[in-house]
Parts: sequence; structure tokens; C-alpha cells
Amino acid sequence: MAAPVEQITLYTAKICPYAQRAEIALAEAGVDYTRFEIDLSNKPEWYAPKVNPASKVPAIAYGGPSVPADQPSLSSTKIAESLVLLEFVADLFPHVPTLLPTSPVLRAKARFFIDAISVKFVPSFYKFQVLGDSASIPALFEATEAIQKLLPANPDTDGEFAVGKDFSNADAAIAPFLARWEVSLSNDIGAYDEGEGKKVWEVLSTEPRFERFRRYLKALKERESVKKTFDKDYIHQVYSKRFADARAQRKANAATAA
Amino acid sequence: MAAPVEQITLYTAKICPYAQRAEIALAEAGVDYTRFEIDLSNKPEWYAPKVNPASKVPAIAYGGPSVPADQPSLSSTKIAESLVLLEFVADLFPHVPTLLPTSPVLRAKARFFIDAISVKFVPSFYKFQVLGDSASIPALFEATEAIQKLLPANPDTDGEFAVGKDFSNADAAIAPFLARWEVSLSNDIGAYDEGEGKKVWEVLSTEPRFERFRRYLKALKERESVKKTFDKDYIHQVYSKRFADARAQRKANAATAA
Repeated sequence: MAAPVEQITLYTAKICPYAQRAEIALAEAGVDYTRFEIDLSNKPEWYAPKVNPASKVPAIAYGGPSVPADQPSLSSTKIAESLVLLEFVADLFPHVPTLLPTSPVLRAKARFFIDAISVKFVPSFYKFQVLGDSASIPALFEATEAIQKLLPANPDTDGEFAVGKDFSNADAAIAPFLARWEVSLSNDIGAYDEGEGKKVWEVLSTEPRFERFRRYLKALKERESVKKTFDKDYIHQVYSKRFADARAQRKANAATAA
Repeated sequence: MAAPVEQITLYTAKICPYAQRAEIALAEAGVDYTRFEIDLSNKPEWYAPKVNPASKVPAIAYGGPSVPADQPSLSSTKIAESLVLLEFVADLFPHVPTLLPTSPVLRAKARFFIDAISVKFVPSFYKFQVLGDSASIPALFEATEAIQKLLPANPDTDGEFAVGKDFSNADAAIAPFLARWEVSLSNDIGAYDEGEGKKVWEVLSTEPRFERFRRYLKALKERESVKKTFDKDYIHQVYSKRFADARAQRKANAATAA
């Protein structure tokens, strides 16, 4: 039915949660592919014109002749946007049960979960970690509770993952963000005020209302495809460097504006 | 392979472009369904608790017992978000060629097109029509050009629609917005300054750089599923009422702020 799968070259970056989504899906599919790390702070000149005009990761070059990844062929198909890639990998490997369920209703649930992540979850964390906006903390907790509500209420009987017992693209879409939350918050690395990250992490780690969240996070972190595509030490190191001056900088900006 | 299709009740509103997306997909599938019009300015009390907690249209109640649409059953599955619904209808009717192509690469192109609409196209028009921000006009033209670039360059040989000769969910996603653009701009109905809508429409209707756009719009407007789910006179009338005071209001607000 489906055409034979052709070569896959993934342009990615270890630091980027969007890129990790595609890596998780490919790991779940168990497929061989060429992985090319893009240095986001110093992108190769050929990347935007030859792979992704938006100059972002992840992107896939699919098919075409056998060429080195840094000399992409004009005749391969270039596909960008992490959520498009999650669907693409699921379409290429329709018989891998862990990418998307076969039931239309469960597929809709997976996609609704992904929509909820994109609209509420990701933006609230960005505001806190990158913009240092502590006014976004309530929104961050609310977004976590909203995600919890979408999970099967009883993980023991109905499954630990977003749409049940099988890991799916919904889990692949959120796992990279949660893994990075943990590194940022538990180590207090962000543009927010000193100690605020740890305080938020304490709430998420101990309060009874976030129990289902913790169980979910644990299941995600134990998933082989998530583990092997996440380099915790590297993320820690890059965040430490990136946010070293962010706190001071934000305070200085605020003082200037006032 | 697929489970038999169960009853479909669509909660929708003629004015809403997001809702029309789902109506187009169901019309393409040629399926019988129950259509229930939600008055967005006076939503029934049962709608949020029983159908969509976000209280938006479109939403589908799928399966469950046979009940009146205004007494939704707890046992039907409720699905919301227009893009989730487009995928859902395509999954329910995998053999309808016009919802999503079978090729993974073409499916990815359709989804990338939809992403481009959501990120650039829809917001730029909203800023112009609803917020009356004439500074957004260049972004609106840019977004139109970006969409054009994603279309097959030669419609005569490669097809008029987003991913080729077959109408797809990508077209269903954009058609409701374009149809409303035309009503708003060509009749100068919006929060923008008097005459600005017509001026923008004049550019889109005559400048050579928008020729591919015009060809696309024509093909969309001639599509049976688009025609029969779009009530031009009704949209005109509702917009006229909604924007009657918007222009004066925006100017008054600006004067107060200054």
C-alpha cells in the first residue's frame, strides 16, 4: 500500500525541544536515518537556501540521491515544522503502533492534546523561563493542570500516556518540553528571579494536586526513545551559559524602563 | 479495516470560518450528519458543560445513542478544534481522496500549508479587519505572497489547489478565511479606516503579482463543498452589523489614549 520508505536526513539540534520531537518519533519507528546537528548560534550558510527557508530545526530531507548531509540535493523533498514531521513519520510507518493509534477517535485525542500543549503549555513556560515573568507562574500551573485533565485519570487501568497505554505522538510532542522544564526549574536556571525556579519545581514535585503530572513525567522519562534523544548534561550546560546574564539583564532592563 | 462510521453531530455557526472548515470536510466526504447552529452571541447553557468546555465552535459529538442535538449524550465522544476535526474526518473516510492525499509527502505538504495559514495568514487579516490596524497591510500582502509560493506554480499542469489537482484539507482550511476576506474587503466592512478595505482588495484583484492568488481563490469559490457551506449574504449582514460602530469606536479609543 504505502510506497517504500526512502532515505531520511534529519537536521536537528540537541538543545531544541521541537527538534527532539522528530528524533523521538524516528526512534519509536526504529528507522535508520542520517542525523545532522545544526549549530543554532552559527548556522551553516547552505541551511536556509537548501533545506529550510525559515532557517529553523527540525527539518527532514526525504529521498533523492545519496549525498552528504551538508550538501543537500535539490531533488530530495524538504519538510519542516515539528508537528508536521510527527505526522509525516507516523504516515511513513503506519504499522508502528506507538506513533498514532489507528482509531480515528484516539487519533483525534492525540491531536487535541498536541493543540493544548501548543496553545497553553509551551507559551506559559517560555514566559517564565525566557522572559523571567513571574506573573506567568499561575498560568504555568493552570496549563499543567489542564494537561493533567486530558490524561487518562487512572493510569493503572487506562494507561500512563496521553491517549492510553501506548506512547504516541502526543507524548513525543510534550516530552522534550517537560524534560527541559525539569533541568531549568530544579536547577534554577532561567531569566526568572533567583530561587523562583526551585520554588515552582517544589510545588510540581510535592503538591498532591500534581500527582498525575508526576506519574506522567516519570513514564515519559523512562521511555527509551525519550532517554536516548535527551542529553541532560548538555542541556544543563547550554542553559547555564545562556541564562548566566539573563537575570541581571532583565533587572537592568526593568530599571531602565522604570 | 476502519470501524464503521457512527452518527456525527456538528455544532457550528455560519459566521465562523473555523466552523466552516469542518463543514467543508463533511461535505467533501458526502456524509449525512446533524447540523446544529450555535448562536455565538447567546450560547445555549448546555453547550460548554456538555459539548465543548472551551465553548467554541466547531465541535463534533461522535457516536453514542440517538439523541436530539440540544440534549447531547454523555456517551458520545466530543471532539473540538477545527484542525483536529479536519484530520478526524479524513481518518473516518480514508478513501475520500479529496480530504488528505495518501502519499506521506503530499500529506506533509498539506499540513505545512495549514501551519503557514495559522501562523501568518489568519493573524494578519485579523489585525486588519478586527483591530483596524492599517500598519498590518504589508504583512497581509506578504502572507498572501507566502501562501502563493506554496501553491503549485503552474496550475494548468500541476493543479490549482494547495497540493495539486485534488482539493484537500489544506484548501478546506483556508477557503473560509478567503471567502470572508472578500466580503469584508470588497465591501469595506471592518474596523479599518473608510476606504482602506477596498484599496487592499483593489491591489489583490488587479496587481500582476497576485495572479496566482486570484486563480486559487476562483478555484476555491467554485468548489461545491465551499459554495454550499458559505452564505455570503448572511456574512455580509452580520459583518455590517458587527463593524457598524467598530471604526468610530477604534478612533474614539485612539483619541482617548493620545
